[in-house]
Amino acid sequence: MLRIREDLPPFLNKYLPSNSEGRMFVTLTYAQSVDAKISKGQGIRTTISHLETKAMTHFLRYHHDAILIGSGTVLADDPGLNCKWCPFEETASPHRMAENSPRPIIIDTKQKWKYTGSKMQELYEQGMGKEPIVVVENEPTVRERGVSYLVYGESKIEWNKLFDRLLKDYNIKSVMVEGGAHVINQLLARPDVVNSVIVTIGSVYLGENGVTVSPPDEVKLLDIDWWTGTADSILCAKLSATTI
Amino acid sequence: MLRIREDLPPFLNKYLPSNSEGRMFVTLTYAQSVDAKISKGQGIRTTISHLETKAMTHFLRYHHDAILIGSGTVLADDPGLNCKWCPFEETASPHRMAENSPRPIIIDTKQKWKYTGSKMQELYEQGMGKEPIVVVENEPTVRERGVSYLVYGESKIEWNKLFDRLLKDYNIKSVMVEGGAHVINQLLARPDVVNSVIVTIGSVYLGENGVTVSPPDEVKLLDIDWWTGTADSILCAKLSATTI
Repeated sequence: MLRIREDLPPFLNKYLPSNSEGRMFVTLTYAQSVDAKISKGQGIRTTISHLETKAMTHFLRYHHDAILIGSGTVLADDPGLNCKWCPFEETASPHRMAENSPRPIIIDTKQKWKYTGSKMQELYEQGMGKEPIVVVENEPTVRERGVSYLVYGESKIEWNKLFDRLLKDYNIKSVMVEGGAHVINQLLARPDVVNSVIVTIGSVYLGENGVTVSPPDEVKLLDIDWWTGTADSILCAKLSATTI
Repeated sequence: MLRIREDLPPFLNKYLPSNSEGRMFVTLTYAQSVDAKISKGQGIRTTISHLETKAMTHFLRYHHDAILIGSGTVLADDPGLNCKWCPFEETASPHRMAENSPRPIIIDTKQKWKYTGSKMQELYEQGMGKEPIVVVENEPTVRERGVSYLVYGESKIEWNKLFDRLLKDYNIKSVMVEGGAHVINQLLARPDVVNSVIVTIGSVYLGENGVTVSPPDEVKLLDIDWWTGTADSILCAKLSATTI
């Protein structure tokens, strides 16, 4: 089980999911370098965070019903997306990990990703993670065992519409969006959709060929708080609906 | 006179100029948004820092013999580059500001900038700043009164060579480099030249059309320390000579 620094939960507390009046609570979270890169290059898995901020990611996963990523990230990283943190030692056994883990949601409109043979399937079969919901544009040609398909009907995702369906059809009340850059950049421009932003800044530069997080236009932040650790810093904020 | 938060000087202390054995002590310092932009766009002056980190810039200016910027920044911003901070109230009078201020060094190889009529000249004439050294490629066609010209002889600046000349010809032992992106990106890749890096991260996104700071390749950092203020965070570090 991952341990989290004692001062992190109280710091994160006011940015965690709370009753958002029948709407999905959306947290945007990612780790970047000082020069705002989330990886060294397209499809290159890159370590940015220190172990203590990595533990935070699992703490956040514990507090959300679901975790959402785009197909680019799932194809590049083959992530497990489960939760290795829980508040009590007695529930920290591997067989409780599935229960503690968020439901993976994969935006894969063109159905490029295969669940079969993935890390996610491996974790599910070991009782250490949940099975995914895959958001596809059209009725899938192949239905993989274990996958729930959300047939969206359009190639362009309208976030509020998708989150409403996830809330109504799956009772998912909170989602953390972990990437990739394309999804994050879109959502940074949506104060009407996003409730919290939690950014880890690792003390490294990844260079001009890295994959950048930067929204299409300026974004002002509210309720700003910073935490600093051994090597990283974490920015928590809410998006402002007014432009600068 | 600007005031600085009490906890900032001790935090900055180990990154300030010290005896660097007959070589120039070089500090790289700039303010960026979360998405690593130093302005909204080319030539657009953009406020990123909170007042308390702005005060830090003047504290740093007090502790350096010179301040260096590229011609792009001087043309876009018409900066004063003087120092509005000093440690003692009794030396805070405007007529002591020239003495407390660093010597401006402008990299302007093609001699595009005019000192006459600039903010820098205005401050010098009011006894509130120093006159600049302008680094030009060739013997200047027009020599402006008050400007010291450093005729470099080549269009491409080799940093060690320039800093050696500034040390030998002008007795400048420490320089802080404030911008712009072109100069910073070059120097981030030079652990052999740069002694300290001090980056202010303002809690705002400036968007994908902003001017980015990102070195040509990965850069690892050493001796990392973070400070967090009301809205900004400051990263202090040294550049590592080894790649990741």
